[in-house]
Amino acid sequence: MIIVMKAGAAKKDMDEVLRCIKDLGYMAHVIHGTTRDVIGAIGDERGKSALQALETLHGVENIVPILQPYKLASLEVKKEASVIRISDDVAIGGTQVVIMAGPCSVESEEQIIASAVAVKKAGAHILRGGAFKPRTSPYSFQGLEEEGLKLLAKARDLTGLPFVTEVINPETAEMVAEYADILQIGARNSQNFALLKKVGQLRKPVLLKRGMAMTIQELLMSAEYIISEGNQSVILCERGIRTFETATRNTLDLSAIPVLKGKTHLPVVIDPSHGTGNHHYVAPMSYAAVAAGADGLIVEVHPDPEHASSDGAQSLKPDKFDIMMQKLRLFTEADGRTL
Amino acid sequence: MIIVMKAGAAKKDMDEVLRCIKDLGYMAHVIHGTTRDVIGAIGDERGKSALQALETLHGVENIVPILQPYKLASLEVKKEASVIRISDDVAIGGTQVVIMAGPCSVESEEQIIASAVAVKKAGAHILRGGAFKPRTSPYSFQGLEEEGLKLLAKARDLTGLPFVTEVINPETAEMVAEYADILQIGARNSQNFALLKKVGQLRKPVLLKRGMAMTIQELLMSAEYIISEGNQSVILCERGIRTFETATRNTLDLSAIPVLKGKTHLPVVIDPSHGTGNHHYVAPMSYAAVAAGADGLIVEVHPDPEHASSDGAQSLKPDKFDIMMQKLRLFTEADGRTL
Amino acid sequence: MIIVMKAGAAKKDMDEVLRCIKDLGYMAHVIHGTTRDVIGAIGDERGKSALQALETLHGVENIVPILQPYKLASLEVKKEASVIRISDDVAIGGTQVVIMAGPCSVESEEQIIASAVAVKKAGAHILRGGAFKPRTSPYSFQGLEEEGLKLLAKARDLTGLPFVTEVINPETAEMVAEYADILQIGARNSQNFALLKKVGQLRKPVLLKRGMAMTIQELLMSAEYIISEGNQSVILCERGIRTFETATRNTLDLSAIPVLKGKTHLPVVIDPSHGTGNHHYVAPMSYAAVAAGADGLIVEVHPDPEHASSDGAQSLKPDKFDIMMQKLRLFTEADGRTL
Amino acid sequence: MIIVMKAGAAKKDMDEVLRCIKDLGYMAHVIHGTTRDVIGAIGDERGKSALQALETLHGVENIVPILQPYKLASLEVKKEASVIRISDDVAIGGTQVVIMAGPCSVESEEQIIASAVAVKKAGAHILRGGAFKPRTSPYSFQGLEEEGLKLLAKARDLTGLPFVTEVINPETAEMVAEYADILQIGARNSQNFALLKKVGQLRKPVLLKRGMAMTIQELLMSAEYIISEGNQSVILCERGIRTFETATRNTLDLSAIPVLKGKTHLPVVIDPSHGTGNHHYVAPMSYAAVAAGADGLIVEVHPDPEHASSDGAQSLKPDKFDIMMQKLRLFTEADGRTL
Repeated sequence: MIIVMKAGAAKKDMDEVLRCIKDLGYMAHVIHGTTRDVIGAIGDERGKSALQALETLHGVENIVPILQPYKLASLEVKKEASVIRISDDVAIGGTQVVIMAGPCSVESEEQIIASAVAVKKAGAHILRGGAFKPRTSPYSFQGLEEEGLKLLAKARDLTGLPFVTEVINPETAEMVAEYADILQIGARNSQNFALLKKVGQLRKPVLLKRGMAMTIQELLMSAEYIISEGNQSVILCERGIRTFETATRNTLDLSAIPVLKGKTHLPVVIDPSHGTGNHHYVAPMSYAAVAAGADGLIVEVHPDPEHASSDGAQSLKPDKFDIMMQKLRLFTEADGRTL
Repeated sequence: MIIVMKAGAAKKDMDEVLRCIKDLGYMAHVIHGTTRDVIGAIGDERGKSALQALETLHGVENIVPILQPYKLASLEVKKEASVIRISDDVAIGGTQVVIMAGPCSVESEEQIIASAVAVKKAGAHILRGGAFKPRTSPYSFQGLEEEGLKLLAKARDLTGLPFVTEVINPETAEMVAEYADILQIGARNSQNFALLKKVGQLRKPVLLKRGMAMTIQELLMSAEYIISEGNQSVILCERGIRTFETATRNTLDLSAIPVLKGKTHLPVVIDPSHGTGNHHYVAPMSYAAVAAGADGLIVEVHPDPEHASSDGAQSLKPDKFDIMMQKLRLFTEADGRTL
Repeated sequence: MIIVMKAGAAKKDMDEVLRCIKDLGYMAHVIHGTTRDVIGAIGDERGKSALQALETLHGVENIVPILQPYKLASLEVKKEASVIRISDDVAIGGTQVVIMAGPCSVESEEQIIASAVAVKKAGAHILRGGAFKPRTSPYSFQGLEEEGLKLLAKARDLTGLPFVTEVINPETAEMVAEYADILQIGARNSQNFALLKKVGQLRKPVLLKRGMAMTIQELLMSAEYIISEGNQSVILCERGIRTFETATRNTLDLSAIPVLKGKTHLPVVIDPSHGTGNHHYVAPMSYAAVAAGADGLIVEVHPDPEHASSDGAQSLKPDKFDIMMQKLRLFTEADGRTL
Repeated sequence: MIIVMKAGAAKKDMDEVLRCIKDLGYMAHVIHGTTRDVIGAIGDERGKSALQALETLHGVENIVPILQPYKLASLEVKKEASVIRISDDVAIGGTQVVIMAGPCSVESEEQIIASAVAVKKAGAHILRGGAFKPRTSPYSFQGLEEEGLKLLAKARDLTGLPFVTEVINPETAEMVAEYADILQIGARNSQNFALLKKVGQLRKPVLLKRGMAMTIQELLMSAEYIISEGNQSVILCERGIRTFETATRNTLDLSAIPVLKGKTHLPVVIDPSHGTGNHHYVAPMSYAAVAAGADGLIVEVHPDPEHASSDGAQSLKPDKFDIMMQKLRLFTEADGRTL
């Protein structure tokens, strides 16, 4: 932490700040500047009382953090990229670009089987589908719950595709983990710390979505929650942040890919469906994500989007998804990776 | 819903849209415009499949929703303001401006008793204090949990102040409700629908904080979750939204007060401490909130903020809180209300 | 500036950074931390090459600015509040809360005279009205230009109210200054530096609006442009920033008032009309602004808003403005000021 | 426009709204819904008084615009993509991906010549460099002005590269146009309508940058200003929008590419340097932009970024730019285009 003193702060104010810094277990180091003094507080900030509170002291102008607050998720602790194995054939974080595809919600056996068969045919590696749905409205379809998990498992048996599905409540997390290959934490639960701790205690890979107003640093802190409970298999997912722009449902922040690659060893996947909210924009944003270095994609595909229970407007039809996969292959190869 | 067709859309595209609208249970009404046609889809959208998915149909330019998606929280269903009784002396939503004050976290018996005595002396009506703390970092203080609830109850016994405290997990919600007078849903759990449903089933008033990237409409949808489970005692709380501005921790959106007063019967309180993140700005924003018509405030007050376990930088010392309350009284009276 | 080195940065990288810091005219001061080193670069950053560019050097993690980049606008240079005299009766920045009111655009002699008479009767101190209109669409009404200025002058002659009007082009700035009492720089021109320099060379007070995506620090930098050209009479105006919320046209950032009061000697006024975009919200936001310590308001009032050439939806009718002024008086008195 | 009436609005309120709609020159069409009525107002909204002002009428809940407010920039008026010729060899908007590269500011003859030679060697098509610099601080380097334009012309003579440079003031626009091949409108001037009109009257292509808080619709409106003055050669440029995220200087909105391609015939280029503010992120975002369908890039390259007068932190060194161009070629070919 750097504590910036006000111009002309009194010596007794400075002394009080220095005393507090030591009280809290840090070493203080003063730099006398031309218009004001700044103090470096040396010591690991993790697990200690926040120096931020020193802002209430007299003579302090502001406090500037220096260290990143996460550790286990950082490249400093683990320098090589984490490769997270999902099945014999599929691992996320290596040279294979991994595609997860399927409908927003599991609606029926027929629908999920048709989806699984179609996305597999087009080359997807993992099936996606929601059984527990966090919906903005209490009057919207809330998912088939355990019945949906069983249908996903049936689709897996049939196609061999592992599946990712969302977990929304600590009380049902273990049950979901009995069925699913990857546990998804949705954007609205990205700082539901009770849920993060719970999936940290389970032994299944976690796909952690970035919240709509979450900084990249906070995303890594949420990953840190999961890892610090013992589960190191965390896949980060950018799915659009909330901005003033209304032409897209969210603003897909693809620069998060190189930013994260410079800070963490965890793999990064992109959700172009929620990220844009419009099926017309899914293919170009998928190409862009792979070109920017994403480790994978999670894409909504629905056999009959105009009758989907949720998110129809952003779902691709299977034929469009198939065309997209063919072109995606070219970009993947241009990047020296495989699809 | 209004479905806007593309300029020059083919007749068969229009026919397909009309067919789908009827399939989904709505009546269609076409308006032929000068450059394009628009279709009004008539019927209550709540509980039905979303017309939004029609955006995937050929010839459709976009879909514009017309109805508000909430009902029980709206002024259309209940025209008079809801007054939520907390104790014999305190009710929120009437002519009394209600002040909730206390530390961010319960840290010790001494600290919470000192806080309660101080805020009562200054004129506060309700004690606030966190026993379960949702912290961005897994390494930060996570609260005293049930021990904290017991200390809050002790402070209530001593001072007569009811207390509000946060609930962060459906699994511990009932336990918190046995102690607390008001259950707080924090900003990061504002769309944790499992938790919203849980507190909707309890019989304690709920203070629902607006999420950092939550629209006012979404705040009302989260209230709708609670009310639709049977609990009508919901108090809405604006606590700052996330914007590009970094001079304050969040941007306190005081215009949410008149906006909400025009849409809902539920009371609205303001949190100027989290809303600004800086104790210097708490008093002016408190005066502004009352002048704009807020039903109450929730303010962080700590006897020793520079050693607080959390949020010290935004906590008022008791003497500053006392001065603020005196001036606040003048603004309350100017508004024809009491403090 | 604080230069943060990467953990484990090589000694030769550090040496290169130190060399560059000295080259650029600063003194370097190294602090050895537990996981990494940080370097304080001492010296006034204003007018020198940016140290920010050192981020491209090997081994540098990031650069953290410490000093505020403005000077003439700051409280450090001038500690007492600036009071800007507009006429014999009106000064902004003192104990008088100053109200500027009138239509968005000057449309006709009849309209501007009726507006001036009405706002004066209700107690406003300054007339507002646009003659040059910066409109998002080239097809919208662009203002009466010099004819509008003449009508504003006529309204001033009749009522004694000084007037504020917008200047949008360096080429016509002098002409506007011959008529107007205050020159307004609109939100969209808040970083039009050619225009800022031009009004800095004129001898009329300037009302500088904050841009929609402008930080408070950038607003002060734009004020610094005007002052550094010789014109110290700058009035800052918060008029809403752009956020994700769509219930209001912009999000009125009232916390800018105490933030600015802690950084600058310049007066601060609030525009609740553009800030909310809805006439229903103008009165409560006006009360809030005064309670938070604003030095004045600029409010749109139109005798016939449903036929206004621009911004009708956010304009008050004269009778509503009159009622608002009466209640505003009570809040002003509660604050120990006069209206 | 769609006018949504309040639930239970009185018949006389509806009649008054219908009367106003006709007064303003539109046809009204009423749809009776289940809970409220909505009125379609038929007629071209461009050039007429805004129906938005009807929101002040009694009984009106809100007003929903239907038509896009731009025309000349839209695909409805011109269906095929515009290809803007810059020189015999270079045209923007066709199958060639066009790269503009060079330093932020022209600093000296040596620097601009070295930059031009280097970017040409790496395969760039157009030189960029600022002679008039819009700087946030009045104390920062403001550019070499006309001397800078002469140096750019000298670099063009030497290398054959056309150049793009910024115009910041209507008063000097013609002079800049005498030298430059493309006139750049910077982000901070993107709604400086006096300047937009001026460059609309000149006969040079315009590179129009999106403002930091500008919606895509507003960007097209600013293009409409230029086109409506007679200059159809407008190139749109996404350069990052302002959001809450601070890990990058701005948030580069690559989804603007497919959104714009669905609305306008104008070419779209991306600025990954300002868009991210960090040279590490420039290459991946460049690959992503081309994969998403951008017609070109504008990239900052500086021979000695750590001593640059401006924007050093986001500038590539020539060797890094060269490597990037090689990989970019692969993505361009994967997309079936040429570099």
